[in-house]
Amino acid sequence: MSSRKGFTVWLTGLSGAGKTTLAVLLATQLRARGVRIEVLDGDEVRANLSKGLGFSKEDRDINIRRIGYVCRLLSRNGVGTLSAAISPYSAIRDEVRLAVEQEGAKFIEVFVKCPITVLAKRDVKGLYQKALSGELKGFTGVSDPYEEPLAPDVVVETDRESLDFSIRKILQALEQRGLIPNADLSRPRRVRSVLSQSWKRHAQRSSTVRAAGRGRSLTLLKRLFLKRQIRKR
Amino acid sequence: MSSRKGFTVWLTGLSGAGKTTLAVLLATQLRARGVRIEVLDGDEVRANLSKGLGFSKEDRDINIRRIGYVCRLLSRNGVGTLSAAISPYSAIRDEVRLAVEQEGAKFIEVFVKCPITVLAKRDVKGLYQKALSGELKGFTGVSDPYEEPLAPDVVVETDRESLDFSIRKILQALEQRGLIPNADLSRPRRVRSVLSQSWKRHAQRSSTVRAAGRGRSLTLLKRLFLKRQIRKR
Repeated sequence: MSSRKGFTVWLTGLSGAGKTTLAVLLATQLRARGVRIEVLDGDEVRANLSKGLGFSKEDRDINIRRIGYVCRLLSRNGVGTLSAAISPYSAIRDEVRLAVEQEGAKFIEVFVKCPITVLAKRDVKGLYQKALSGELKGFTGVSDPYEEPLAPDVVVETDRESLDFSIRKILQALEQRGLIPNADLSRPRRVRSVLSQSWKRHAQRSSTVRAAGRGRSLTLLKRLFLKRQIRKR
Repeated sequence: MSSRKGFTVWLTGLSGAGKTTLAVLLATQLRARGVRIEVLDGDEVRANLSKGLGFSKEDRDINIRRIGYVCRLLSRNGVGTLSAAISPYSAIRDEVRLAVEQEGAKFIEVFVKCPITVLAKRDVKGLYQKALSGELKGFTGVSDPYEEPLAPDVVVETDRESLDFSIRKILQALEQRGLIPNADLSRPRRVRSVLSQSWKRHAQRSSTVRAAGRGRSLTLLKRLFLKRQIRKR
């Protein structure tokens, strides 16, 4: 039984800002350090826990509360949980923080920051175009609110920083709080090679990514990059 | 990091058969052996994950799938998870078993068996009276189906066995599969004192129960017994 406390890393930010990419690579890094990790990706959780819910404020709040409930269960059992849902409303984020911390686990809010102009240009899923043209209603940041965190534990700026730097910032926050063991430099080179890429290169040279770790991280990565390839065609 | 695999103990049976009582006492026993345990009580999960869902077959299935999803997440992270939902349909129970086992975790189906005549007489929550009078529609075992497990891993007969014996059966199944360490007889007496009570005495002498373990087990126990006290008035 590990005596180490669980924790929740709560990645919040606009669609396409890089939450899932960060979560998946963080998970690979953390598992390589022997930490038990679960990624709660917004889309995956919607499919498993919130099918039928829409994108009204009420439904979004219910969805985030459900993710928060699962984070709480996992965290209090020593699992590091990475949430990658937009979670636009600060009150609900604070509610989840309280619930996790009441269990004696840490809650690390990470603001995945990227200007909407950059996101609309990247438009990984083609959603910004639809939202800006009015085809897609209630889209966070365009036609639905996003409340930026006022006092996040970590801010990563994915339009300015390398992916490596963003990951290191979050790892450092976890190390400083004693939540994870310090980096072991003897870890496989192929893991580090992923981290030497910038966010831009990361998106372009997707085929070079060979993330170590569990099968499902790799599958998720592949899915992510596949989407990008399809878009390019 | 514990090298021990997680597992899911899936208690299935009619309302009032003793699923939650068993789960709460099992949790206390298992935590005393140093095993990380979560209890997913049917009512609690409905409040946190399935608010708004009803009791149609479709809604019941969604509810059980959600519990199964959480069991899977916890089990694959080394947590022992005890589900105490009625889960009337065998196909969905089998689906959850498959999902848990695909993660390399064990799934132990426990049939919490008790004749409906005994349950209607006990009627802990006063629901059988309402169901039998027709006031409550779609009540499992009365006006809604319950599919008994054909090949459960453990059967406990709560109208015939002592609570002690029922608990021991489940613990033995877990021990035999190498999922939990063997009993440590040096554990606090007050834990063992709970187990020396029969199911009947357990319901009557509620005030004598002093379960060791985490606060929330105790709170859950208190809530259970409080309900009974209110009913008696």
